[in-house]
This record gives sequence, C-alpha cells and structure tokens, in this order.
Amino acid sequence: MLDLIEKLFPICRSITGDGVRETLAIINEVIPVEVSEIPTGTRVFDWEVPREWNVREAYIENSAGERIVDFEDHNLHLMSYSAPIRRQMRLNELKEHLHSLPGHPKLIPYRTSYYDDNWGFCLSHDQLEALEDDTYNVVIDATLEPGHLTYGECLIPGASDEEILVSTHICHPSLCNDNLSGIAVTSHLAKQLLQQENRYSYRFLFVPVTIGAISWLASNEERLDRIRYGLVASNLGNDAKFTYKKTRTGSSSIDHAVMYALETAGVEHEIRGFLPYGYDERQYGSPGIGLDVGSLSRTPYGEYPEYHTSADNLSLVSEEKLEEALSVYARVFETLEDARYFLNRAPKGEPQLGRRGLYKRIGGQTNQAEQQMAILWLLNKSDGQHNLLDIARLSGMSEDILSAAAKLLVEQELLETL
Amino acid sequence: MLDLIEKLFPICRSITGDGVRETLAIINEVIPVEVSEIPTGTRVFDWEVPREWNVREAYIENSAGERIVDFEDHNLHLMSYSAPIRRQMRLNELKEHLHSLPGHPKLIPYRTSYYDDNWGFCLSHDQLEALEDDTYNVVIDATLEPGHLTYGECLIPGASDEEILVSTHICHPSLCNDNLSGIAVTSHLAKQLLQQENRYSYRFLFVPVTIGAISWLASNEERLDRIRYGLVASNLGNDAKFTYKKTRTGSSSIDHAVMYALETAGVEHEIRGFLPYGYDERQYGSPGIGLDVGSLSRTPYGEYPEYHTSADNLSLVSEEKLEEALSVYARVFETLEDARYFLNRAPKGEPQLGRRGLYKRIGGQTNQAEQQMAILWLLNKSDGQHNLLDIARLSGMSEDILSAAAKLLVEQELLETL
Amino acid sequence: MLDLIEKLFPICRSITGDGVRETLAIINEVIPVEVSEIPTGTRVFDWEVPREWNVREAYIENSAGERIVDFEDHNLHLMSYSAPIRRQMRLNELKEHLHSLPGHPKLIPYRTSYYDDNWGFCLSHDQLEALEDDTYNVVIDATLEPGHLTYGECLIPGASDEEILVSTHICHPSLCNDNLSGIAVTSHLAKQLLQQENRYSYRFLFVPVTIGAISWLASNEERLDRIRYGLVASNLGNDAKFTYKKTRTGSSSIDHAVMYALETAGVEHEIRGFLPYGYDERQYGSPGIGLDVGSLSRTPYGEYPEYHTSADNLSLVSEEKLEEALSVYARVFETLEDARYFLNRAPKGEPQLGRRGLYKRIGGQTNQAEQQMAILWLLNKSDGQHNLLDIARLSGMSEDILSAAAKLLVEQELLETL
Repeated sequence: MLDLIEKLFPICRSITGDGVRETLAIINEVIPVEVSEIPTGTRVFDWEVPREWNVREAYIENSAGERIVDFEDHNLHLMSYSAPIRRQMRLNELKEHLHSLPGHPKLIPYRTSYYDDNWGFCLSHDQLEALEDDTYNVVIDATLEPGHLTYGECLIPGASDEEILVSTHICHPSLCNDNLSGIAVTSHLAKQLLQQENRYSYRFLFVPVTIGAISWLASNEERLDRIRYGLVASNLGNDAKFTYKKTRTGSSSIDHAVMYALETAGVEHEIRGFLPYGYDERQYGSPGIGLDVGSLSRTPYGEYPEYHTSADNLSLVSEEKLEEALSVYARVFETLEDARYFLNRAPKGEPQLGRRGLYKRIGGQTNQAEQQMAILWLLNKSDGQHNLLDIARLSGMSEDILSAAAKLLVEQELLETL
Repeated sequence: MLDLIEKLFPICRSITGDGVRETLAIINEVIPVEVSEIPTGTRVFDWEVPREWNVREAYIENSAGERIVDFEDHNLHLMSYSAPIRRQMRLNELKEHLHSLPGHPKLIPYRTSYYDDNWGFCLSHDQLEALEDDTYNVVIDATLEPGHLTYGECLIPGASDEEILVSTHICHPSLCNDNLSGIAVTSHLAKQLLQQENRYSYRFLFVPVTIGAISWLASNEERLDRIRYGLVASNLGNDAKFTYKKTRTGSSSIDHAVMYALETAGVEHEIRGFLPYGYDERQYGSPGIGLDVGSLSRTPYGEYPEYHTSADNLSLVSEEKLEEALSVYARVFETLEDARYFLNRAPKGEPQLGRRGLYKRIGGQTNQAEQQMAILWLLNKSDGQHNLLDIARLSGMSEDILSAAAKLLVEQELLETL
Repeated sequence: MLDLIEKLFPICRSITGDGVRETLAIINEVIPVEVSEIPTGTRVFDWEVPREWNVREAYIENSAGERIVDFEDHNLHLMSYSAPIRRQMRLNELKEHLHSLPGHPKLIPYRTSYYDDNWGFCLSHDQLEALEDDTYNVVIDATLEPGHLTYGECLIPGASDEEILVSTHICHPSLCNDNLSGIAVTSHLAKQLLQQENRYSYRFLFVPVTIGAISWLASNEERLDRIRYGLVASNLGNDAKFTYKKTRTGSSSIDHAVMYALETAGVEHEIRGFLPYGYDERQYGSPGIGLDVGSLSRTPYGEYPEYHTSADNLSLVSEEKLEEALSVYARVFETLEDARYFLNRAPKGEPQLGRRGLYKRIGGQTNQAEQQMAILWLLNKSDGQHNLLDIARLSGMSEDILSAAAKLLVEQELLETL
C-alpha cells in the first residue's frame, strides 16, 4: 500500500482535472475502476458541477528573476482552484494572496477556493517573513474552463444484489494520511474481496469530496435502495487509535458490525455519535438520502497537527498501520457476511442433538462446552428475528464460535439460512 | 407583583364566596379575566358544587366580654366553611373546636372543613394554653347557602388554536406563597404574553383547588382536545430552588421545555416524577382527562415549615424571587414557541451553502463555527420528526443558536416552517 | 416435606420405568396426580419415546464371590439406562465401564446413558483404586424393552381458564436437592392452592427431564395457548440463596412477580438472564413453543459441589429451607393473583373520596397517609393498561397496601376488576 501511496503522492489533485484522472488510472492498476465524467454545468441536486481546473505552471518570481515560490517544487504552494494570472505587483498587494501558518512556521498550508473566483499561494511562514519589499512577477498558467468532474467506482458483485458502499475521497493533492491512506486501504480491500465469494455486493467509490459524492448520488438516485450499509474511509495510515463515527441512526447493523470488529480485533478505539460534519457521510446521511453510512478512520478530520499541511507527507503513514486498518475493515465485512439470519427448522422444544452427533461430541478447534452453548443459543434465537451478530450480543459468545456451530446445524438441516 | 400580593393578602378566600369574586376583580386590573359562576348543586363529574360560604363576623368572647379570638384580626382564625353558630359554652366543649400547632406555638394554623358540617377556630398554641376555665360566647355569623362557585380565566389567542394551559389556585385566605405567589406570577406572565405575538394560544385559569378545576373541566370537556400542554403554578415567591414535577407520561414536550428552561436559566432546581398528589395536576392528569400538565413551583406543597400557617405571610416572599419565577415561566414558553418543526427543502445531500452566503460567513453575535454546526444539524434533522428542542438535545447546542440559524435557513428557503 | 423426601429417596428413578410410577404414586398421597403413559416409539416433535428401563439387580462380584459393588446398596452404583449384561472379565476390561470422581474420592458419581447402548458402574474413587487385578463377574439384570414413558400432572382449576405452569423433574434416582426438593416443594404448593380459591388455574407437571417435558408439550400442543406463565422448580432444599433465571423475553409478568416476591420476602437472591441451558425451561422457552417460563431455584444446576453425586443426600436439605422455598413460591403466586387489572369507573378528575368515607378516614392495619396515596395511585393508573404489580413498581408502594386499597375502591364501585 505504501508503494501505491508513493506513486500517487506527487500528483496535483483537486475536485476536477487531470490529476483525478491520473489517480484513477493508477488505482486501476490495483482493481478495475469504472470512470465517470460529469460535464461542467450539470445540475446535481442543489449544486452545479463546476468548471474543470488544470495547471501547467505557477510561480512567484522576484525582480532578480528567481522563482521564490514554485508549484513545481510542491503542489501545495498553489491554492487549489486559483484563477489564472500573469501580472507584476508589489509585496503589499501580493501579501493579500499569500497563506502561511504562523503557529507552524516551517509548514506549507493546504488552501482551496473552489467556488470563489480567487487565486493564492501557500508557503511556510518563515519564507513569508523573509520576503523583501520588491516587485514580484506572479504567474498562474492554469485553465478554469468547461470540462468534467471525474469519479471512479468498482462494483464487486456478490450473491445478493444488496450493496455495501465504501467511499473515499480523491481530491487532495500531495497529502498523505488525509486522502491517500484511504485510497490505499480501500483499493486493497476491494482487491481482497474480488478474490473471494461474497454474500453482499460491494461498491467502492473514489470521489472528490462533497461535489463528487453529490454527483454520484444524483446520478444513481433510483438505485440507492440497493445500498444496505456503508462506510466512509479516510485517515487510516497514521500511528493512532481508531475512531468510529456512527451512522445517522446509530443503531444500524453496520454500527454493530464495526463495534464488534473493533472489539474483537483488540485494537484501541473510540466510538462517537453521528455529527453532520466530517467527510461524505454528511451527504450519504442527509435526510433526503438517509443511507446508513458510518465513518471509520484513525484520527478524524482536523484533529491531528499535520492535517492539511505539508507535514501530512509520506513520513506520517506506515505500511504497518495501513495493514492494520485493512485487516479491521476486512473484519467488519467478514462480520457482516457472517451475520446471517437463520431459521430453526425444529423449533418445538430442543431437537435431539445426540442422534445427530451434536451432543457433547463436536470436537475440533474449540472447547466442547462452548460449542454446545453456541448450538443451544443458535437454536433458541433463530426465529428469523435475530442474526448471528444479535445472537453474539445476546449470548456474549464470539461470532467465530457461533458461525462454526451454525455451519454444523445447517449441515444437519436444523437451521435454514435466510 | 408584591403590590398585587399585598392587595390580595387581607381578603378571606375559600372555595366559594365573595372573597373569590373580589380576588378575580383585582386580577382583572392586571389582565382581562372572564368570570364564570357555577350554581350550587351542579353535577361536575363525580362531584357536586357545594353551597356558597360567606362570613360577616366570627369571634370567641370570654365572660368579661373580651373578644379573645377574632376573625377580624386574622382570617385564619376561622376554620374555612365553618357552619354558623351563636352559643355559650364552657372551655371543655369549646376546646373540641379549637386548632393549634403545639410544635409551632406562635403560629395560627390553616384549617378547612369544606364537605363536613362542622365549625372551628384556629389560634396559636400559646393562646390556647392561656385560656382560662370560663364560659365563652362563640359567634360565627356566616352563611352556607345555595349560591355559586366562581372561577376566572383569561384566553390569549395565538396564531394556532392549540392551547397551553396555566392553572393556579385562588381559594386560600391570607396565605402568601401558597396561593398568592402563583396568582401574581401567572397574571403578570399573562400580561407579558398579551403584549406579544404568540404561536400558541394561552389559557390562564384562576380556580379554587380541586372542585374549581373539576368544574372547569366538566364545563369544557368537549374543548379539551385543544389543550396541548399545561403547567400548574404555585409556591413561587419564597427563597428556595425550583421543583418541577413531570406530567403523567413524563415525556411530553412540556417536560422537555421546562427542563431545558431550568437548565439554561442556570437556576438551582430539582426534577421529580409524576405523583397523583399535590395541586390540580392531579385532576388534569387523571386517566379520563389525560392532559400533559406538569407542576412548576419552588418548594412544593407541604414541604416548608411555614406552609398552611400564619407564617406564610408577606415576609416569606420577595419581588426578586417572584421576578425570577416569572422569567423562568417566560423562558419555558419561549422554548415551546421556538420549538418548531422545520422541513429541509433541499434534503438530498447538503445544499450549497456558499452560494447563499451561509458557508463560514455568517457573522454576528455568535461564533462562526457554532453557527455553521447549527446550520448543519438543522438541515440534517429537519425531516419533520424533530423540532428545535429535539435538535438542541441531539446536538448539544443551545436553542438560541439553533433558532438564529433556523431564521437564516428559512430566509434562504432551505427550511420550511411546519 | 422432609418425610416425603425420605420416602422417595431410596427409589431408583430414571426417565422411564417403575421407579417413576412408584414416585408418582407417593406424590398422589399428597395431591391427586393424573398419570399419563406414552408408548415407546411415539414420535414427540424431533424425538422418539425410548424403550423402558427396569432393573432387578446389578452387581460386580470378585473371584472370591464377594459383591464389591452392588445396586442394592446405592442405586447410583449403576449407570442409568445400562444395558443388561452377565459376563466375566478382567479388571482392565471392566475399568472402561467404571466411573469415579478423582477430585472427590469418597463420592459416587451419577451417570446416565439414555440414548447410547452402553453399560457402566459408578463407585467412589477410593474403591476404584483399591480394586485388585482379578476376574470379575459383572451382572446387570435389567430390561430395556418397549414399554412407556410415564409422567404425572395435577390441574387445579381456578376462576379463569388461564393456566400457570409449575414443572419439576422426577427422573433422578437417590439424589435429594436435585430432584426431590423440587417434588416436595411443588407438591406441597399444589396442596395449598387446592385448599383455596384461585383466580388462575394451576397445572403442576412431574416429568422426566427433556423427553418428559417434550412428550407433554407434544401431547398438549393445541392447549398451550392457555398457559400464561410458568416456573421450573428444582434445587430448593439446600442452604443457599435463591436464584431466578428469567424467561426468554425477560419482561413477562412472571419475571416481575418473582422479583417482587423475592424482594418483599427479604430473602437473599440473585437474578440472571435467560440462558438456553439448565432444566426444562429450555423446552418451554424454545422458539416454536415460546412460553414465558422462568426457573426459580436456590443454587442452580451444577453449581454446588454435591451436585450429581452421592453427597446430594438427605443431609443436604432441611425442612427449614424447604419451607422457606415453599413460602417464596406461594408469595409469587399470591403476587400474580393480586396483580389484577382494574378500571377506574370515575376517570374524569378524582372522584369525591370524602363522600365515600375514603378521604383520610380509612384506618386499620396501616397508616392513613399511605392508604391515601395507594388510593390515588390506583385511581390514576387504572386505565386498563397497568395491573397492580405495575402500579406497585410505578408508585414504589407495596402490593399489600395497594391490594387493600383496591378492595375498598372496588367495594365503593370506583374500580372495576377486569
């Protein structure tokens, strides 16, 4: 995953433009990605797809002809969606368009101006302080013209048409934990799911934040009833505990599955209630859409010091933390896949287990008494109202043991899978 | 309010009689009061309106012709609803009709005998102990005859026909906190509400306890479905924390509004569950009536030492405490008035706030980040199922901030008021 | 009760056979028991009634002709449902059929092999260790042949057809707390109920565990809708606190009644959630049966050291503990009998209590203020949705006081019994 991140890091992404296309092409080397292009001006719910933005070069030159700030050096130097300009100006005027972080004088901030007609450069506060009174040549050779908004998706069909949505944003330039860690984990998760049989279908979305999610929702409105649950993935590569932000209702099976997976994975984590703020769970959970989509990250949105600065670089993420996040996501979906509903086919009294070799005889990986209890709980609660996850909660037993016991009971035709 | 209390204090009130009429006439100087007279013998649910009681004079004279206990001095001296008598008797016989408080030897108790044929005098225990063996002339020149039960009401029409009921009792004689403080606060509250536009209609009831409330309910049974919530007001002028006794269900919006108002007012308070005892919330909350009526007081019914004694006089209440109670009541109704239901008119995804100047630009009295969150919570939860009070609880934000944000969203036609 | 237990102790019971018939005959001396015989081979839900087992004699003889282990001495010596055998064998071969408790070297264990074709002897570990290498003559003169499964029941008709089930198992041989204590307490409980008028009908079941309960359920399936609640009784004579295991839903009135009875009896107790393990509450609470049956015992199933050993003998139980258990069971059913639903016949406002002599005048066994509150709670909550037990919980008042107050209100025609 770190290789993928390294490859994606230098690309200048924004909510539209060739950087997004290039990013999707690289993800396509890991998993098949279907790319959609929505034309500028398309009405998407309350919004309109903006003009497409592409940059050829952008720099500030001093009177000695030295490029003192150059997009070529770091794509954070240019405020995203800066309008084209080619003009000389004095320091005073220039300063109104310069952004720095006085509290972190060595870092370049990340700034955007998607829906305002504006331009700007970002630089370290040390560099800003060192600027002399001079006449500067400001060049932004960019285009802001009718074009397209681009997003990608990867559908992994399962036995059922019901879909689980995994959404991650792809609109940030050289930022690593915020953006690239999500891309890396979700594309490798999709790769794993492609290699196995799944009960649910899985839809992976790689979308520019807000306008991308809204464009996808508007383009797929009539198919949204297929989506049973979803997760928004982001900030997954840094060295920090996990944070799960619940869905709008807070009581969806996806909430139970994530909490179960985090607990049984034995990883440090924190559970938070829904908040209409953050990433695209805001859009998926809006009242007119109402999907059960939570957000599973490590440190959330804006809560780590490197967030939205040049310090969110390759040194902030590690393969180890990415792998751990991948395994937690995989465990969530395993939990959901296993959380089947069963029906007891001999529901009057207990069936005679001994005759079927299920009475204190089922040996194997785990201890007999536990297996026996798992069988009794499954028989007692499999009335069509409780799935395996519910029975795990009621009994205090692990899904693994219950799942193994359910397999035996299905083989013996005592349980029927719903 | 203290002026009003001082004016009402000397009047001899009971559950019927001219003292009630006089009281309503004085309240009518503050707000318009519509007076109803229910004839003696009228059947009201399980009850019958009793005979009307009026007193001309009442005293106990010793053999020296000295009036040693006189209704003229303090109207608590005469047990309420005492039957007329004019007879000489020895101390022994008299003592069976004398009531005092041995534990509080300087105080005159308050006693009533509404539905028994009886008579009695109340006096301090010191005075009782000092009585000599003598022949006493006992005179109660009172009438207990067919007449009327009198109550008053003041309806303040609002935009909606739905009514909020505020009920206070007016049947106690010279008692100050119990009775007069409720009259003072509710009449001034009505005065305030008369001077402003209200969403709800407000109905203020000034009724003799129990039989008055029952008479009003029986006379208005077919109109009770208009009453959405209500509060019984009493004991509001002494120096003590507030006590809120919840409605029968304990989960009405009036319960939430009172608790919200008490918390945000920053006043010391205690919340209690419903109990079928106390004042007229018992009648409003009876199973065949079933109104959502709570009771908001300071020290409740019977829990302060001055209760139902001559010590519940003008020195027990203060303008400051009455004003505070008035402001808490006003805050409760403000909360209910503000607790509107809104509908998000752009419910699919978030609407584009920036285009409408609502994105991190709304300045003014409060901080931007809070306003931004208020806007997002309102948009997310305005599905017709959550009112402003619910959203305040869900978000942990104050109704004030949410209300201001809702105003902006209504102006921008993003929210519709239901 | 101890007399009954002493009489039953020596009998060799199993899930079928003459020991069961003899046991039911002895219970029939206390209460009338209707005996049912279900033929071997009868299909009962997922099970089949097994062959009947009876033993004439069973022993192990050494080469000197001494009977070193003899069923005559203790019926635990023979594994229940041992197949007949008459054969000589060396110690090595014999040992595969001997069962002891190395951790409790002086105790004989209790072993069964109902549904396997097997035989075995149980003995103390000390005795096992002392066995010499010898040729042993093994004799089990038993029959395992088509016959019947036997169970008994006693129906005590009440005013209503609705039944309360009390089930206890009768299939254990010389074991005292496990098995006989349940028989003693439930048969004496039935005796008490027979001597009084009851609202509910009571059905007492004396059944072999599992197959007996299943046979009864299968034979009475079309009548199960009459059963409103039930309790499984067992382990009631030892010196230990009570344990209540809730019904499948955990929120049935029987759960509330047992918890109320345990609390008000002032006995030490523990409440546990439902578990699909234990005695026949497993069968009654299976998803296709779904009866509200809890289990009220002292130390539960398998949790005391004497359990299923020769130490569960007469010294483990006492008349005092049996009596206490009987009184707790009686209190549970008193609670249910009293937990009637009433309807307030004057539900609009409070009725005029004074006119009926119910206002602060009701003297007698308890204090007036409490009676007054009981009356007000009953009137307020008797809307047909709350029974006496619910009102006790809501008001914090005891069922006794509420019940006495309800009696007064029914006499005065203010409450109607539903």
